Amino acid sequence: MNKHAIYHKPEYAYGFNRDLTTFVIRLRTDKNDDFKQINLIYGMKYDYQKIRTTKKLSLKHRDDLYNYYEVVLSLKDSRLAYIFELNIHENTYYYSEKGITSTYDFAVSYYDFFQLPYTNKIDLINIPDWSKTAVFYQIFVDRFNIGNKDKNLTYINLNWGDKPSPKSFAGGDLQGIIDKLDYLQDLGVNAIYLTPVWESVSNHKYDVIDYFNVDPMFGDNQTLKRLIDELHKRGMRIVLDAVFNHSSSFHPFFQDVIKHGKDSKYYDFYIIEDDYVSDDPLNYATFSKVKYMPKWNTSNKDVQDYLISIGLHYIKEYDIDGWRLDVADEVSHAFWQRFRREIKNAKPDALIIGESWHASEVWLRGNEFDGIMNYSFTKAMLDYYAYDEFDAEQLANRLNYILMRYEDNINQMMLNLIDSHDTHRFYTLVNENEDKVLSALALTMMFPGIPCIYYGSEVPLPGGYDPDCRRCMPWDQRFDSTTYFKTLQAIIKLREYPELHNYDYKIYGSDDLFFLERHGENKIVFISNESNKDVSINVNGDILVSNKYHDGHIYSHGFVIYKGK
Amino acid sequence: MNKHAIYHKPEYAYGFNRDLTTFVIRLRTDKNDDFKQINLIYGMKYDYQKIRTTKKLSLKHRDDLYNYYEVVLSLKDSRLAYIFELNIHENTYYYSEKGITSTYDFAVSYYDFFQLPYTNKIDLINIPDWSKTAVFYQIFVDRFNIGNKDKNLTYINLNWGDKPSPKSFAGGDLQGIIDKLDYLQDLGVNAIYLTPVWESVSNHKYDVIDYFNVDPMFGDNQTLKRLIDELHKRGMRIVLDAVFNHSSSFHPFFQDVIKHGKDSKYYDFYIIEDDYVSDDPLNYATFSKVKYMPKWNTSNKDVQDYLISIGLHYIKEYDIDGWRLDVADEVSHAFWQRFRREIKNAKPDALIIGESWHASEVWLRGNEFDGIMNYSFTKAMLDYYAYDEFDAEQLANRLNYILMRYEDNINQMMLNLIDSHDTHRFYTLVNENEDKVLSALALTMMFPGIPCIYYGSEVPLPGGYDPDCRRCMPWDQRFDSTTYFKTLQAIIKLREYPELHNYDYKIYGSDDLFFLERHGENKIVFISNESNKDVSINVNGDILVSNKYHDGHIYSHGFVIYKGK
Repeated sequence: MNKHAIYHKPEYAYGFNRDLTTFVIRLRTDKNDDFKQINLIYGMKYDYQKIRTTKKLSLKHRDDLYNYYEVVLSLKDSRLAYIFELNIHENTYYYSEKGITSTYDFAVSYYDFFQLPYTNKIDLINIPDWSKTAVFYQIFVDRFNIGNKDKNLTYINLNWGDKPSPKSFAGGDLQGIIDKLDYLQDLGVNAIYLTPVWESVSNHKYDVIDYFNVDPMFGDNQTLKRLIDELHKRGMRIVLDAVFNHSSSFHPFFQDVIKHGKDSKYYDFYIIEDDYVSDDPLNYATFSKVKYMPKWNTSNKDVQDYLISIGLHYIKEYDIDGWRLDVADEVSHAFWQRFRREIKNAKPDALIIGESWHASEVWLRGNEFDGIMNYSFTKAMLDYYAYDEFDAEQLANRLNYILMRYEDNINQMMLNLIDSHDTHRFYTLVNENEDKVLSALALTMMFPGIPCIYYGSEVPLPGGYDPDCRRCMPWDQRFDSTTYFKTLQAIIKLREYPELHNYDYKIYGSDDLFFLERHGENKIVFISNESNKDVSINVNGDILVSNKYHDGHIYSHGFVIYKGK
Repeated sequence: MNKHAIYHKPEYAYGFNRDLTTFVIRLRTDKNDDFKQINLIYGMKYDYQKIRTTKKLSLKHRDDLYNYYEVVLSLKDSRLAYIFELNIHENTYYYSEKGITSTYDFAVSYYDFFQLPYTNKIDLINIPDWSKTAVFYQIFVDRFNIGNKDKNLTYINLNWGDKPSPKSFAGGDLQGIIDKLDYLQDLGVNAIYLTPVWESVSNHKYDVIDYFNVDPMFGDNQTLKRLIDELHKRGMRIVLDAVFNHSSSFHPFFQDVIKHGKDSKYYDFYIIEDDYVSDDPLNYATFSKVKYMPKWNTSNKDVQDYLISIGLHYIKEYDIDGWRLDVADEVSHAFWQRFRREIKNAKPDALIIGESWHASEVWLRGNEFDGIMNYSFTKAMLDYYAYDEFDAEQLANRLNYILMRYEDNINQMMLNLIDSHDTHRFYTLVNENEDKVLSALALTMMFPGIPCIYYGSEVPLPGGYDPDCRRCMPWDQRFDSTTYFKTLQAIIKLREYPELHNYDYKIYGSDDLFFLERHGENKIVFISNESNKDVSINVNGDILVSNKYHDGHIYSHGFVIYKGK
């Protein structure tokens, strides 16, 4: 037994509630260790010395190093004390806060049992109902569609369809999105997430000058209201991009600081070393090294008040359905905790998705973000579909690893994506292999969490790194009648199956095939083949969607999804 | 190399700030693995692909299973990206969010480097200055000293000095504490923590009827104010006991609920199953199974408002120096987060100590408690001094394990104790061996964190489990002239050494001796011998305190503390 591999903590991904009475307890072991049985010995903490119950844990998931055992308890009294009993070969061990021991004295267990001491309702992590069936579509506004041709068009410097540069303006706007809502509904998505829409001198608008006004390039506040109304009429949702890490250097507050230095009442709104700002050498905090994006000092209560008033304004006055938080991992925790409280107080089912590319436990404890843009998932998908780093089993290992980092309800709120405005287009990284894109999007749809499709994936649009991944939608092409498009429509429709909202899943690789099963009344199974050979496979159920699957064979780069028992 | 043992996460005990520019990065490995060198390869996250620095980690601590390597970085830019380079035998591995790999491609590292993305000032965990030299003395008020003999004495049913029962009232009061402040100063402690003082029918007063009034048995609000003034005049501090998990069933709010059931405006202040409360069968949440202690519903904002108004009242009107939180682990996190914000806002250097007997990471992230009553430490001390479970090396392993659970600044705020009103007296558990008690208290004083001495330890008082651990102080004995008492005074004085407030320590066992070193300008070293033989030892410095140490020998159950280079 590899003692060093054994891990449990009564928190987070290892001990948590799904709801007030459902407890999940997990234990990690070395996957090479063959346990005869692992039991949970549990009871109510105040009479644990006398009254205990034993229940077996099941091996539920595995990654490249570890097995994950799990037991789900349904308890009325939530003051849970427990230890583990490990049976391996002919030996029995006990695992408690004391470590791994060959005996365990329950009489003094109050010092070292594991515990989930009490679940207070207010601390539960709740999933917004609508997010359970949401399929997001991310729009980079300037490149999606021109709707308003009466606006001042002089800022446009890119012919629609030409290759964009960092300084290109193509003319896309909010009216252009309104004009395509029928199209988006036909595609099947039911939620959109827009890159920033506020006044800004750039095409991406991540350098905001006025958070309270839509940029004239994109329309005006009334257009935004109409867009939201039109979406809501269709039962669709909208999430906006909150750029609260930094402003534009043209923001009036920073302009005031440039002018008055330390005497400006906005001096402490930013993080500045000297009495006056200088951009060479740079003496103030910025996003990355971008001098025109000065960083907000979110340790300052006045800054918090200001940014939260923006957050609430669009929830209350515009009725948006959530926020995507830009560069969220560099903003203070204290700010996000307050932001969440105030946003959820105003609209309990608002969704809060942070931009954080890395392991994000610290923001995902139920008091900051609901989920993050799941770039770990993106990378795993690239390693399998694009980079030949992963075979089917390695992908399964990695995806299980990713899911074992967070508790169940958090995993259900991760925004799973294969590309975005900040990455190469997936289609380009897989050498424009449409089958791979479809397979990857189908897997995304099947994966626990909320799928997000980057605009143009339905064409599919090619594109390298920024700015190339921000090309214009080729509306002059009839891409919506292709088999590719129709297959994608069928994939998106899958999200309606209740099995895809359950906690129960299984992910594994077997020979050349990758499997992702979702369990409920039925079993919905995704199988993909990224090997270079055709593989025969027995499908025990009704095929829901497939690509390159015929007569019991999945051909190379094909996938199949079926519903069975 | 035991891959399964390797652990790092860019958070908490493994990646954290001590202050805005000091970063600590830790890595855990199997202690049987002999690494040639472990390096941190780090840089600023936005140019990590191009510019990186390498720095060696040092082996700092070990427990029974693992080695802990550490590196401390001083950085102006806090947007830190890093991975580990592991050199073992003739091989080199890399450890990143990707796992352990034999190569690492820095070009795509933005997907999987470890990161500490930005340290915002407001998120730093600050240590109240005064707590760095604090030595606490816990008083169970009814048993400490009778000061006011003019009060109504009819409630007293225990002759001072007789063995207490659960229902005993001995007559101790706040005036009795005021009368003993000279004594406490002479003993050397500089902070007191009182069990609850508010109106209540019990001797312990953990069932509060009126949070705004001192119980007449103990005095009145003016006496409490005088006690606090007298303490502050002497430069001493006071922490009160906040019983916010539950009230007394005699609390007027609960009485109203008993009367009016669901129609009471206080119905949702508690957690009740039916329309009316019943205590048989019990249909409302309580502390443990104690029907006269109904549990507050801290998910309810009105309850939060009420309890926080109490928290603030004693900070603002009485100027107390902090709160000890009773049954803190069963109260909602949302409540404690709000409690902390409001208390620290009113008095930034107030100390908040939660009662939680178990691994408490979830409360110790800088937004709930400062520290907890460190009962894991208590248990380790018992395993070494009382139960013969631990030899010197095992104690060192366990103490290192305990310290490696939390980040440095949290460890400095743990309330370290060997006994309390909720345990047997340590003196009794070590079979009334005074040498062991002194050695244990000396170790407590030397350990990172805040030492807390339970009243009567200076006698020392014997006592089994509650109520026996709550005996009366034997003021009729001249215990303050014993060698035991004087040795304890010398031990308490040690806390003034600046070396004891530093982050740098080393804990280990060697042959029969246990070593705890604190490093600073000098090195202060504690050595104890709990083996059954006398051990010769070379002390390289000035002896500060000792017991059973003579002529280069520590006799069985002796200890020595010296200052050297």
